[in-house]
Order: sequence, then C-alpha cells, then structure tokens
Amino acid sequence: MTVPHLMTLADLTAPQIRRLLVHSHQLKQQTLPWLEPQGALSRKKAAKLRLPSQSLFNKTVALLFSKRSTRTRLAAETSSSLLGGNALFLGREDIQLGVNESARDSARVIGGMCDGIFARVGEHEEIEELAKWSPVPVLNALSSLWHPTQILADLLTLHEHAHLFNGTKAPEDPKLGQVTSLPDLRPLTVAYVGDSANVLHDMLVSFPRLGHQLRIASPEQYRAPKAVWDRVVELECDKSIWWGADPKEAVHGADVVVTDTWISMGQEAEKAERLQAFKGYQVTEQLCKEGGANPDWKFMHCLPRKADEVDDEVFYGPRSLVFPEADNRKWTTMAVFDLLFGKWDLTGEVHAPTSATIEEVKST
Amino acid sequence: MTVPHLMTLADLTAPQIRRLLVHSHQLKQQTLPWLEPQGALSRKKAAKLRLPSQSLFNKTVALLFSKRSTRTRLAAETSSSLLGGNALFLGREDIQLGVNESARDSARVIGGMCDGIFARVGEHEEIEELAKWSPVPVLNALSSLWHPTQILADLLTLHEHAHLFNGTKAPEDPKLGQVTSLPDLRPLTVAYVGDSANVLHDMLVSFPRLGHQLRIASPEQYRAPKAVWDRVVELECDKSIWWGADPKEAVHGADVVVTDTWISMGQEAEKAERLQAFKGYQVTEQLCKEGGANPDWKFMHCLPRKADEVDDEVFYGPRSLVFPEADNRKWTTMAVFDLLFGKWDLTGEVHAPTSATIEEVKST
Amino acid sequence: MTVPHLMTLADLTAPQIRRLLVHSHQLKQQTLPWLEPQGALSRKKAAKLRLPSQSLFNKTVALLFSKRSTRTRLAAETSSSLLGGNALFLGREDIQLGVNESARDSARVIGGMCDGIFARVGEHEEIEELAKWSPVPVLNALSSLWHPTQILADLLTLHEHAHLFNGTKAPEDPKLGQVTSLPDLRPLTVAYVGDSANVLHDMLVSFPRLGHQLRIASPEQYRAPKAVWDRVVELECDKSIWWGADPKEAVHGADVVVTDTWISMGQEAEKAERLQAFKGYQVTEQLCKEGGANPDWKFMHCLPRKADEVDDEVFYGPRSLVFPEADNRKWTTMAVFDLLFGKWDLTGEVHAPTSATIEEVKST
Repeated sequence: MTVPHLMTLADLTAPQIRRLLVHSHQLKQQTLPWLEPQGALSRKKAAKLRLPSQSLFNKTVALLFSKRSTRTRLAAETSSSLLGGNALFLGREDIQLGVNESARDSARVIGGMCDGIFARVGEHEEIEELAKWSPVPVLNALSSLWHPTQILADLLTLHEHAHLFNGTKAPEDPKLGQVTSLPDLRPLTVAYVGDSANVLHDMLVSFPRLGHQLRIASPEQYRAPKAVWDRVVELECDKSIWWGADPKEAVHGADVVVTDTWISMGQEAEKAERLQAFKGYQVTEQLCKEGGANPDWKFMHCLPRKADEVDDEVFYGPRSLVFPEADNRKWTTMAVFDLLFGKWDLTGEVHAPTSATIEEVKST
Repeated sequence: MTVPHLMTLADLTAPQIRRLLVHSHQLKQQTLPWLEPQGALSRKKAAKLRLPSQSLFNKTVALLFSKRSTRTRLAAETSSSLLGGNALFLGREDIQLGVNESARDSARVIGGMCDGIFARVGEHEEIEELAKWSPVPVLNALSSLWHPTQILADLLTLHEHAHLFNGTKAPEDPKLGQVTSLPDLRPLTVAYVGDSANVLHDMLVSFPRLGHQLRIASPEQYRAPKAVWDRVVELECDKSIWWGADPKEAVHGADVVVTDTWISMGQEAEKAERLQAFKGYQVTEQLCKEGGANPDWKFMHCLPRKADEVDDEVFYGPRSLVFPEADNRKWTTMAVFDLLFGKWDLTGEVHAPTSATIEEVKST
Repeated sequence: MTVPHLMTLADLTAPQIRRLLVHSHQLKQQTLPWLEPQGALSRKKAAKLRLPSQSLFNKTVALLFSKRSTRTRLAAETSSSLLGGNALFLGREDIQLGVNESARDSARVIGGMCDGIFARVGEHEEIEELAKWSPVPVLNALSSLWHPTQILADLLTLHEHAHLFNGTKAPEDPKLGQVTSLPDLRPLTVAYVGDSANVLHDMLVSFPRLGHQLRIASPEQYRAPKAVWDRVVELECDKSIWWGADPKEAVHGADVVVTDTWISMGQEAEKAERLQAFKGYQVTEQLCKEGGANPDWKFMHCLPRKADEVDDEVFYGPRSLVFPEADNRKWTTMAVFDLLFGKWDLTGEVHAPTSATIEEVKST
C-alpha cells in the first residue's frame, strides 16, 4: 500500500477536492450537536446522535510546527479528538528539523510511532523530505509555497454562503444534527489583493478548476515563484487568472475580495519596504466602489489580521466572512485527517458518508 | 442563550458557591476509585462504578496561559480528561494575546473552535476582553485581580477538615466510591498574613458571605485596589473583615492562618524592597502563639512556597493543610469545568448529582 | 501499599525484565491492528479485535522533561493514549524542578493530581528525590546515570530478530492481531563502542544477567562512575564484561555492535576534546572486519545519530536495526506504563496477559 501524502491542492483532482468539501460539510453537521451544552438537547434527541467517523481511534497525529500557528493548531487538535484520536504537538522548543537529527531520521522515527504527520515547516523542501521518508501520511500544514488546508476552509465557507451570491434567500437553518447537501456555488469572480504567498498559491491551482475566475493585484516583486506557476500552467488554471499591479483593477466585478497580511512572522525587518510596496492595497469600501466590485462583494482573510491590509469597517462589517472562514478550518482539517490519516483514502472522487456509534468504534 | 463566564467568586451568590463545593466533593468521591491501581478493586466492585459527569465528551477546553502555573494547569488537564474531554494548552510560546492579533479576534477564533476558555492572563482587563468577545464560556484561571478557582479549593479543604475545628473525631473514611455529604463547617476566623493579591481578593468577596471572619495583616502599600474593594463593599463583606499591618494582631483568635508568597513571578526585581516591607510576616509557631491564635490553628498556602513567608516547621508539620489544598485544585476545577463549560449552568443554587455509564455518555 | 518506582533495570530481577519483554511483545501484537488504516481490515476481523490493557483509563501520566527527547516523549504520549489514558507534557518552559519550588513539593503536588510521573532529569539525584516524595509511581525517563526504557527496547529488538543470530530463517509474519511467543535469543556477544553513559550503564546491569557477554571500548576518561559500577558488581555482572580502550579489540566476536552519540545535548563545548578522544571509534564495515566481528554482526543506536560515531553505510545498511529499535521504544514504554503506572505491579515474574473490550473497561 503506497503511503498517501498531501502537499498542495494541486495534488488533487477537482472531484477529489469537491469530495473533501462535501465530507467537511457532513462532519460539521454531524458533530455540532455533540458540542452543545449538555442538557440543551432532549434526552430523546441526544440518544439518536451518531458519532462522526472514529477513524483515528487509538491513533496519534504528530503536529510538527516549526512556527506557531494558532488556527492550524486548534483545528488539528480539536479534530483529532473528534475523530477518536490524539494530537501530539511538537513545537520549536520540542524539535528542530535537521538540527539535532536529519529530517530523514526524524520522519522515520516519528512516523514509526505516530499515525500521521501534520507539519508546518519553513522551506517547502522540508516537508517534501518528510513525505519522502515517512512510513505514514504527511499533510502540509503550511510551507513557504503552499497552504492547502486554508483554501479548503475558504471553499467550504463560500459554498455555505452560496445564497449570498445567488441573490436567493438564506436557506432555513437545518435542524441540529440533520445532514443537508452542500449548497451549489455559482461561478464567482474572486479578487486577491496582496502578497503572492502560500495562501494565494493554493487558490491559483484550485479555484479555476472549480469554475471560478481569479483577479490578482500584487506588486511586481511579490509574484508567484516558478515552482508554483509551473503547476498552475500544468493544470491549465492560468486561463482563468488575471494578474496585475493595480488593486482597483483587480476588484473589478469581484464577488469576493480576499487578502492576507503582507508582513508575516519573521518578515518584520522588511516592514517599511513592504508598507511602501503595498501602498493603496488596503481593502476598503472605497477601493471596491472605485474599482467596480459587485455591490454585494464579500470579504475573506485567513487571519491573523493587521489593519494595514483591511480596515475595521470591512473586517468587522456585514461583508466579512472571516470568522465563519476561521471556524471552517476545523471542519475541513477534520475531513482531511479522516480521509488521509484515518483511512489512507484521498483519491476517491465520490463521497461515502461515515459515522459510528460508540459500540461500533471497534468494528468500523 | 447567554454565554456564562466566571471572573471572580463575587459573580456568584453564596448558595451558588456552596453548590460548587458540594459538586466538587461528589465528583471527587465518584472519581477516586477510578484512579486506584488496576486490580486494587475487586471485579465485582469495579463493575458497579459509575463514571463522573461526561459533559465534556467530544469537547476541547483551551488553556490560555500567559504565565506558567503548574497547579492550575494540572488541575485543568486532568479534570478535562475525567469529564470525557480534552485540554489544549497554549502557553507564551504558542500565543501572546494582543501581540500578533487583537484579543478580540483571538477570543472569537479560539471560541469558534473550542468549547471553553480557561485563561491565566496578566492584567485583569485582558480576561474581561476575552469574555466580551468569546462565543463560549471563559473562566478566569488567574488574573492581576482575582483567583476564583484557588478559593474554591481552599473552601473545599476546610469543609473536608471540619472536624478539626469542631473538636469532634475525624469521621470514618467513606468506602471507596461511596458519596457522602459535604461536612458542615462552623463559622471560622481566618487570618491572612501577607500581600493583598488575587488569592486574598477572592477570599474577601466569598468567606464573609459563607459566615467566616477575615483578619488581614498587610503592609500599608500592599492593600486591595479600589476595583476589588468596591466589590467587597457591594457584597457587604467589609463588615466581617478586620484589616491592619501587624501580623500578630491579625492571627488573634485565628482558626486558620493563610499566606501566599510575597515575591511572585516577575516581581523578583522588587525582592529587596518586599523583604523589608514584610519583615515579621513569616508564619511560625511563635508568631501564632504570641498573637493568640486558636491553639489548634491550621495552615494553608496556595503554593509554590518560599521559606520567607512560612517556616518548615509549620509548612511540613501537622497543622499544614497545604497538600490536600493543592489536591483539591483538581476537584474544584473539575466541578467548575463541568457546570460552566460542559453544561453552561453556573446559576443553579441546588446541587443535582450527575454521573454516567460509558453507554449513557451519548444520551446524557 | 508501597509506591513502586523504577530508576534502572538494576532494580529488577532477570525474570522481571523478561516478563516486561514478553508483555511488550504482546501489547505490540495486540495493538498493531488498531493502527491500520480504517478499512484495511475486514469488518469481521475488526469486530474480533480486543483492546490492549486499559489500565490508564481516566488517568494522567505527567511527563517532566527538563531536556527535550523526541523518542521518549513520542513513546510516552502514544502509549498513554493506547492504555486509555492521557499524557501531560511539562517541559523546561513549564516547570523547572527546584527553581520556583522544591523538588519535594513538586513531587507531592504533581503526584497528588496525576497517576504517574515519567521524568527526564539532569542529575540522577533529582529523580531519586522525586521518587522519595511522590505518592504515585515515578519512572526514570533518562538521568545522568541510567536509561532503563532504552535498554528494554534494545532487548525486545534483539529478541524479535533472534533468527538473524540463530542462522535460521525468519519466521513467517504472524497474522495481524495474532499473539505469538517472544522468540528465544541465544547468548550473544554485544560490543559497545563509545562513551560510557546512561545507555551503557543500563546495559551493564542487565545484559549479563540475561546471558549475554559485553565487550566495551571506551577511552580511559569516559568510564562508568563508581555509583554505577557498584551496582554492576553487586549483581555479579562484571564477570561477563570485558572493558578496554581499543574499538577493534572490543568488536572481536561481536554479534551486535552498539554505539551512541559522544556529543550529547549540552556537551557541545567539549566537542573538540571528544572528537580527539574518540578518534578511531566510528563504527564502519572496516573496523568490524579488522576487529574480527561475527560476519553477520548487526548494528544498534539509540538515536539521534551523528555521522561521527557511525558512517552512512552501516547506519542505513542491512545490518542496521536502529529503526525497529526506535519503534520498540513505544511498545516497551507501553508495557512499563501498564505495569508500573496502571497496575502498580512490576514485581511479578510471570506474564499474565491482559486485554479488554470497550465494555469491559469499567470492570477490569
């Protein structure tokens, strides 16, 4: 059995990505009733609840985080637990890849005692090295090049808010525990205004294949590196991507405006230089009005946020989807953990729902 | 449903505090048999055991600790697990509130993925800010002003040792797993000798309402701040509080003498100044004899302890309740986690016992 | 009931050590099927699986690590979880024994809230102090003098590969979940080439009692301290130990060659001096050929490895047992946790197998 890994959404087909979204949506709906305060559900209703997939029962996922990352870690730890398993956090204080031991040896040793490796590294080569030698699946939690789990959360959030773009009414809230279909999403125009970094890179290789147009504004010097653009072209995503340097032009016709912080951890030294390069890039009502965005445009941001890239009016206002987007880090991570670490099955294209009772845990 | 929080015992009525103590006592008695070495109980007895409340089943409590705190953390992690849940520790290395992200955004994001927030912050305003924006309950693990979970442990310890103050014989040890009533405690005179800090503050707003007198010795410059004293007066606790600068006067008639370290983490710089201010404050047999304490006085300390504030003879001697007091951090934290995080129900005044079998976990 | 502790294998009889190996072997075989990707086993087979011992159910093991240690920590966290319990990691950032609180007080407090203490300290005296005051079992995870859990993993690995030394064929792989006997191991000649440190010390007090000869090469200045050698002599192990300074002489007739890094964490300052002292100590094909090792010699190393002490050809080649050896840290740790922390029963000499169904967890 070949060990499966996931480095970027470019590694998956469009149907495989859709399957992950459907699976995330189902796990979320199955799980939410369990998280209600005890007593909020009647005993009768509570007795009917089924557990989500328990594919990590008795298993441990190693979280190798060379930099801290609140959302990614919270998503990983809470979802490991919901799948019946255990997360083992190893931060910079605990392990430094390649310092006291080669990455090759660490991958073999950690993979020999744990059942999956979720790694947030610096240079992308490091996670490729882990995947090369690990006897268990490796999932990219964030590298210099890619950020696949973030983009899954963005896509799930857009699907859940599909009615906002269809001009239809919000669907009735499903009853707690009811599993509904993932809403269809019309083809969107998505503007990304900012630095070309890992978050954008995974948008580039996935959004076009799911039917969406991308319009990107990024200063000349902060564009996608060749390793990324080669994958974009290989997947024929480049045809649906407009790229320029003017934020106003980028948001033209945009249904969704996305940005990220320009000054990431470790880049504080370049701060002055970046503030200059990204002058005029702050997402505001005015920018989008002048640029001619869809009047109903929505806003997304992977967080943490600084005010440089988006003002308070937009960030905390009714256009903002940022907090549902953050919440969805949990449910999409749970779906990938289930299929990748729990079942070694990322290659299916059709979603087969799974759940379990406590009694069935042993036999599923 | 309004999200409940607990910042200080001043937020609870006296019956609500009593209910927490009764609940702690019951959870402790229910749980202890599970912690025996396997095989110590006969199979027949073991088969009759019931699990304590499993209200955190599938849930995760985030521990936000901006300073380290061994006891508080051990209590939180062990009791989350006993309630069927999971604790997620985030220390200074993992998250710094307000540094890389506003406390508001962190509260919303953490509360969106976890089911409760137990936070040990610096300035009390920080935890108020978390509570303001979190979608799930926030519990104060320790702030500049208050330390509610410590005082619950102190109260439980006093109740468990009620016979020492009644001049009655120690009750027979209950059979393992037997749930007995929380012993009644006669009105006590409790002396606090030391710095007016968070531990004392929560004593000030709770002990008088439970029928006890407080006698406090603290140097002029280390007295309770206005924000605390206002709550004391509002709750009419001031009538049962004597406050002076002379340790001997404070311990007069005391049934219990309490102190805390004067030199907390981060205050090492002021050490010389504090050693001067607290000259004569060391709790010793001689001090209490000269001051005229009840000859049967007992000693409490929230730990960690330095010899400056209490000598070895008292600390390790037969008067000392410090280790049962430390153990009770676990059981009182478990009770608050159950009622606050698991059930969103701190406002009840009467104790309703809960337990569960593994089979019933789903339906409770 | 006296609280049992384990500081070194010198504390156990040979039959007690053998029992731990048999128990490790069984736990491993029982557990591996649970760690298969979900779906790899047929539902029928999966339904027949039994859980390994759940003796840590509801319990928490404190991991006190004053230095980091990847393998030891992974083994401890994964095996706690497999035994139904919880591991609570306290690193240097979380607690510093003796700094903010005496080791005595910490032992009493941690042991009052947790159900076992697995401590990796600096000086061996520190763990003796913990064991003296803890109300729950203390297990030495690594000290300046001893490393008992490493040697158990080495012994299990040798038994599992017994056929390599017997000149017999590898036994057929047992069916997944089948529990087979621990293979018998013929008396071996084991060469240790390197620094006399904690790893070697536990070999000195155990290998001879299990029938093996030890041949050690170590520079004059890096020999076992008196405290260790006294135990060696007391157990009459010295008769089976040859000790010299010449690596070639040491590997003469060796079935197994073992080494460890010479430059451990914290010793980087002495690096130049040590490189000089250990000149000629690198384990290579040539060294073993010239020294006259058994042509089928195998290689072991407790990791992490630097190239100074062994070259790539040996380390990654077919003689190397280093990764199975690392994997076995998990299974031997699980066995000790089960018997020491879960059952307070290290003194038995005969192995009594245990397993449990989820339903039986309550009653075992």
